[in-house]
This record gives sequence, structure tokens and C-alpha cells, in this order.
Amino acid sequence: MLIREATREDWHAIWPFFHTIVAAGETLTYPPDLGKEDAQEWWYVAAPNRVVVAVDDRGTILGTAKMNRNHMGNGSHIASATYMVDPAHSGKGVGRALCEYSVDWARDAGFRAMQFNAVVETNTHAVRLYESIGFKVIGTLPEGFNHPAEGYVGLHIMHKSL
Amino acid sequence: MLIREATREDWHAIWPFFHTIVAAGETLTYPPDLGKEDAQEWWYVAAPNRVVVAVDDRGTILGTAKMNRNHMGNGSHIASATYMVDPAHSGKGVGRALCEYSVDWARDAGFRAMQFNAVVETNTHAVRLYESIGFKVIGTLPEGFNHPAEGYVGLHIMHKSL
Repeated sequence: MLIREATREDWHAIWPFFHTIVAAGETLTYPPDLGKEDAQEWWYVAAPNRVVVAVDDRGTILGTAKMNRNHMGNGSHIASATYMVDPAHSGKGVGRALCEYSVDWARDAGFRAMQFNAVVETNTHAVRLYESIGFKVIGTLPEGFNHPAEGYVGLHIMHKSL
Repeated sequence: MLIREATREDWHAIWPFFHTIVAAGETLTYPPDLGKEDAQEWWYVAAPNRVVVAVDDRGTILGTAKMNRNHMGNGSHIASATYMVDPAHSGKGVGRALCEYSVDWARDAGFRAMQFNAVVETNTHAVRLYESIGFKVIGTLPEGFNHPAEGYVGLHIMHKSL
């Protein structure tokens, strides 16, 4: 697996699984009806923030991540990131590879910590993954997320010092 | 004291104290060098979000608040707000009036909770004010804010159910 910068052309391969994940509305605080063009503007954050894709040996895109500053001004030493893994390629360590890549990026870019603002507590796969990489839940917004199947569930704020 | 919608013209009266507060860099994660025009675009959030001013009997602007949705998609039932009180008019209950107003707005607008994403822990006046109105610290980002005098201090995430 290789992680490289996302090109504008990659979006056509990203969008199908991005749309599946966002439209399901179970794991992210993104508008479930986000359209293809708006979603690209949303995802392709401007430099020095970054957007990458994880690709296999044949060049197939397995997942994507965006990495960005999370606070401004005197909080600008805090980074964040968001990950999307194609469900057709789950269980291959793609999410872990993207998360570890983003942590390395943030550290190398001089950030002092990473923060996730809104991790849905029923997304236990992600919570466990982040915890295994050293993130801790520092607080939970009670009933912060209206899960389509589970109803109102908590939104974790997670943090890792770099 | 009256709280009313902010007009574009009000910005000329808001900017001097807004600039003083932001340039001091002690209480907000805003770029301390934010200029007058950029700051107005920043502060004047689009409807249905709101921007208000607190004025005295003579029409003098004492403080301002913006109120906005804090999360999107299935987290869109969470509101947030930010307050600026002219230091020349501190101690008159302006911050409390603006905070209570924003809580009422959020409740009336159908939000289920309010969240502050980044309350500097050394800003004890604000923390105590928010707590007295029913907000609770649900987590603290360790060393989340680089205070110009105190160094790295925590950033509280605060929450109130509506």
C-alpha cells in the first residue's frame, strides 16, 4: 500500500465510496445529501493542509484522508484529520495506515497535538483504532449525534499529544 | 440594555473593541492579526446564524455575539456562540445578557444543545459565567492554547443541554 497526494482526477474514484459513507450518515457530521462537486471542495482542503489517497499495487484507491489545522490563532498548534476507507477494502489496515500517516505529517509539520472533534461513539471500530494509535477520549458531547438507527448517541472529542 | 440584530454599519463601533480583544490573543483562537474587513466577514455569519449587539439607552454598543450551528449533518442539532464585550463596559452584565440571549435563541431555533469548542481555561471569568448559566466543562484539550503570558494552557469544551 502506498499513500500519496490526491490529485483532482482521483476524485472520480474517491466519490463513490465517499458518497456511500456520507449518505449512510452513521459516522460523520457531514450533510448526508452532500453532492459530488460540493463534497470535493469540502474534502480538498487548501495547502498547507493535505489530502492523500491510499492505493494498492495496481493503483486502486482504497481510502483517503484529509489533514488540517484544527484551531487558529494561539490554538494553531493543534491539527486534525478525517479518514474515509472504501468499505470494499475494509479490514486491510487502510484506516490505520492513513491515521498513522496523518500523525506523522502533523508531527513533522510542527503541530503539538491532534484532535478529532466529532467521533461517533457507536463507531467503535474507529474509536478502538484511534485509541490503539494513542488517542484518548477527552470528553463526550452527550446526544451529540443523531444516528439513523441508534438515535441520539455521544460524540467523542479525541486527542493525542505529538 | 437592549439586544438587537447587528447592522453592517455597527461594525465600525464593534471593531475597536473586537480588535483589542483579538489582538491581545488571550481568550480566543482567532488570528491576533486579523484585519478589520476579514474580521467582519468572520463575525457576520450568514442567516439562519445570527449576529447581535447589546446597546445601552443611548445606543452605545457594549458588546456583540454571534450564534451559529456548530456541527452539520446528523450533528446539526448543536449550536454554538461567541461573545465580545467592550472592556470599557465590563462588569455591567453584558456578557451574561448576550450568553442568555444566545441560549434562548438556540432553544427557540430548535437546537437541542449548545457547545463551546475552545474556552481558554485561564479565562476564569468566562468559565464561571458559562457555568452559572448551566454550561459544564465536558473535556479539556491539554495545552490547547498558547497564552501570550501563561504559556500553554488548556482549552475547555463546554456544553449545555437545552
